[in-house]
Amino acid sequence: MLKVRFVALDTYPENTAFLSRTCTAYRPEEFQALRKIEIVNGGKTILATLVISDDPSLVASDEIGLGSQAFRRLGAREGETVRITQPPPRPSLDAVRRKINGATMTDAEIAAVIADIAAHRYSPMEIAAFLVSSAAFMTTDEVLALTRAMTDVGEKLSWDMPMVVDKHCIGGIPGNRTSMIVAPIVAAHGLYMPKTSSRAITSPAGTADTMEVLARVDLAMDEMMSVVRKTKSCLIWGGHVNLSPADDVLISVERPLHIDTREQMVASIISKKAAAGSTHLVLDIPVGPTAKVRSGMDAARLKKLFEYVADRMGLTVDIVMTDGAQPVGRGIGPVLEARDVMAVLRNDPVAPGDLRARALLLAGRILEFDPQVRGGAGRARAEEILDSGAALAKMEEIIEAQGPPPEIACAGGLTHELKASRDGIVTAMDCFRLARIARLAGAPMDKGAGIDLLKKVGDPVVKGEPLYRIHSCFKSDFDFANRMAEESCGVSIDGRHEGKGEAA
Amino acid sequence: MLKVRFVALDTYPENTAFLSRTCTAYRPEEFQALRKIEIVNGGKTILATLVISDDPSLVASDEIGLGSQAFRRLGAREGETVRITQPPPRPSLDAVRRKINGATMTDAEIAAVIADIAAHRYSPMEIAAFLVSSAAFMTTDEVLALTRAMTDVGEKLSWDMPMVVDKHCIGGIPGNRTSMIVAPIVAAHGLYMPKTSSRAITSPAGTADTMEVLARVDLAMDEMMSVVRKTKSCLIWGGHVNLSPADDVLISVERPLHIDTREQMVASIISKKAAAGSTHLVLDIPVGPTAKVRSGMDAARLKKLFEYVADRMGLTVDIVMTDGAQPVGRGIGPVLEARDVMAVLRNDPVAPGDLRARALLLAGRILEFDPQVRGGAGRARAEEILDSGAALAKMEEIIEAQGPPPEIACAGGLTHELKASRDGIVTAMDCFRLARIARLAGAPMDKGAGIDLLKKVGDPVVKGEPLYRIHSCFKSDFDFANRMAEESCGVSIDGRHEGKGEAA
Repeated sequence: MLKVRFVALDTYPENTAFLSRTCTAYRPEEFQALRKIEIVNGGKTILATLVISDDPSLVASDEIGLGSQAFRRLGAREGETVRITQPPPRPSLDAVRRKINGATMTDAEIAAVIADIAAHRYSPMEIAAFLVSSAAFMTTDEVLALTRAMTDVGEKLSWDMPMVVDKHCIGGIPGNRTSMIVAPIVAAHGLYMPKTSSRAITSPAGTADTMEVLARVDLAMDEMMSVVRKTKSCLIWGGHVNLSPADDVLISVERPLHIDTREQMVASIISKKAAAGSTHLVLDIPVGPTAKVRSGMDAARLKKLFEYVADRMGLTVDIVMTDGAQPVGRGIGPVLEARDVMAVLRNDPVAPGDLRARALLLAGRILEFDPQVRGGAGRARAEEILDSGAALAKMEEIIEAQGPPPEIACAGGLTHELKASRDGIVTAMDCFRLARIARLAGAPMDKGAGIDLLKKVGDPVVKGEPLYRIHSCFKSDFDFANRMAEESCGVSIDGRHEGKGEAA
Repeated sequence: MLKVRFVALDTYPENTAFLSRTCTAYRPEEFQALRKIEIVNGGKTILATLVISDDPSLVASDEIGLGSQAFRRLGAREGETVRITQPPPRPSLDAVRRKINGATMTDAEIAAVIADIAAHRYSPMEIAAFLVSSAAFMTTDEVLALTRAMTDVGEKLSWDMPMVVDKHCIGGIPGNRTSMIVAPIVAAHGLYMPKTSSRAITSPAGTADTMEVLARVDLAMDEMMSVVRKTKSCLIWGGHVNLSPADDVLISVERPLHIDTREQMVASIISKKAAAGSTHLVLDIPVGPTAKVRSGMDAARLKKLFEYVADRMGLTVDIVMTDGAQPVGRGIGPVLEARDVMAVLRNDPVAPGDLRARALLLAGRILEFDPQVRGGAGRARAEEILDSGAALAKMEEIIEAQGPPPEIACAGGLTHELKASRDGIVTAMDCFRLARIARLAGAPMDKGAGIDLLKKVGDPVVKGEPLYRIHSCFKSDFDFANRMAEESCGVSIDGRHEGKGEAA
């Protein structure tokens, strides 16, 4: 028996336990080979990665230190005694080993893997083993079983209504902030569209980051319910809603490994939507040379897989392939994107036309789900709602219901303009490069940081004219971003990259 | 710039860095997405996994804490200032990603992966991604490139002599401690056989653990050289000799994942031998129903792969397939195995005949490498050396040269005998199960713990006769081991498992 000690270290997503090298109750070396221990606190049991401490002030020889994650998940109090044991064999790992050797997994095996992952019983290396073995190949039925298992393992929202619509983009296109226009249009029409979004992880802004410029997004489940009852919609951060928790754990390994397979994307998106209680989904797949999907053929294969899985999950899905050749709108970064969104909702003549057109397209497709809307009339109905000001009014209602933002943010005061080095026509914009520069400038951490595009593909430019403006809030970020942009700015004129660097 | 603070936490094999959540110089959240930072100390750079600290007494906001591994590898002093940055892209990871997608890796890509792994620039999850993607398939040329890269990345021993012999067993058979008999025979004959061995990781004893019962094994490189000059041999722990360092890192992930592919086994073994300067190698592949290799066909494929790679690495290899149906000798665990080894060397009539026969077989095959030995006469020459007492004298010489063991160990005083439940003939022994019971009993940590086999396959038994005896040094281990043995003891009589449990 060891006494629990809280160790204020955040080792997200892993559980970490600290044992003294001079631990009397157990010999840490015994556990060290596998670096994993099981901790038992009454009826509650967690697995944790073991760290050996040589600092008696951190953990004494009759104590066990628990990092923030382990402490919270075990639900122990300081000073309480717990028991540690060798971790029991996890049969689901045997299934992963068979998968590594080329086997196909059964539904039950996939469910067991996902249950273990959601319960934090897999270490990152074990998660990587599952992801990589699945990346080699997955049958469509394995994808379906994975989706079902991921849906079932967490909470599920249930809305007492026959139609709950949603809209999702597979991502990769900076500035593609259509949800914040689509949701008010659709809700103003009368459909329910409760939207939970993510914060940016590797991009310069997620919908939750951008919405947070305008309103509070950090809502608990019951607050969300109340906003939806009031407005038929919401635009909140999904972090407080425990939907498809295995997905969050998988992403914490997929992201650093840059594993982004079609199969895992489909399971991730469909499981979240199914758990959120959506019945109808419009899915935006941007296709372009620097987008996530780079050819029409890839897009078609992805579309079919989405349809196969969604059909069997009982989710009506409409896939829209959109132009992913360049960023959408002018702003990249929360404040600049929120400005574009509000300009579209206000029918401001300077509002970016591409963002408006895209939002209308997607909103129109959602409205077509409504049996009351005449086939083919969705887009016109969406335009009618937007032009009438009803969408803006709905957005104001949603903002009012969610509450004021945590801080008033404005565009970063440090600015630098990237100038064209020659006359010509803008022929390409690299989504990936621009996102990276915007991130270096400070987005999404600094809401006002990012890029303001002054030219888009097709625009003529004259030598010396600015292509875009970098905004930063801090000098060090500003310098980083400027240096990278001067090297290669992500814009091509007449087919030639602008910039001084090798990449240009 | 952040001030270095030593944090006495052992996170082997990973580098770990601790930043305060209130860190002023950088914002930890910025790094947290990837959980990895690069730390620059003058010319020295390491990658480390980031842990966020909420404990100001552990690391202040202008400090960076470094765990034992990171502190040592960065070579920083406390209070010194270092710089942290986003980790640079590692192009070798792109090659791993291509491998995940089914590509074959080039020699240069494999070399880059191994260089990064050896320099601790891969996290466990990244290592797992490489291992699992390689487990799906590897061409023989990839295995060769991997072997070469692993050999080249560490130190290499060079012996100023035309023939340096070695002997290796792929493992899995408890008690198979032939090296400690083969090395003295071969050295007594006059060949050089410097033997570095591992300690047990998941088995109840490694050769280094067993040899440590008799002599010091913890020798530095120059001490080893001096022992070899004096005796033509040595039997030491390889931990101080930085041969094939990537192998050690790979093993730290293969082990918990139980990934043990043919390809990785070949690269691991051949790279260690090539780096150790061996010119001739006899390789023991035990084949049996509970051994690592379970069929003659698997053994043949493994043999061919070993030969292909060894030939191209310029290493002469002779593969010997041996009987892997049951443990070798009587003892399992360091003290009990050392007793068997010394009994064979002393030509004691009670010495286990199977251990003696096996050692003579392998020593004979090594002696055949000597051009002076007439073809086919190796085994007889080995027997002559053993019977004459020359091997025992050589062993005493080696022990004398290496120095006395750190402690005098004897068989554990807590003993329990497993009794036959029926009359019959012992028909099978489960190597895996027996190893597990011996480990639970305390081996190899407690040198005197383990199992002493009183019956072997083919022996007749009468109901109530002991099959084997468990030795332990501590009550808790003793109880664990007894419980597991009573459940299913790993011995079959007339084709039926002995024990009360389901597995029996």
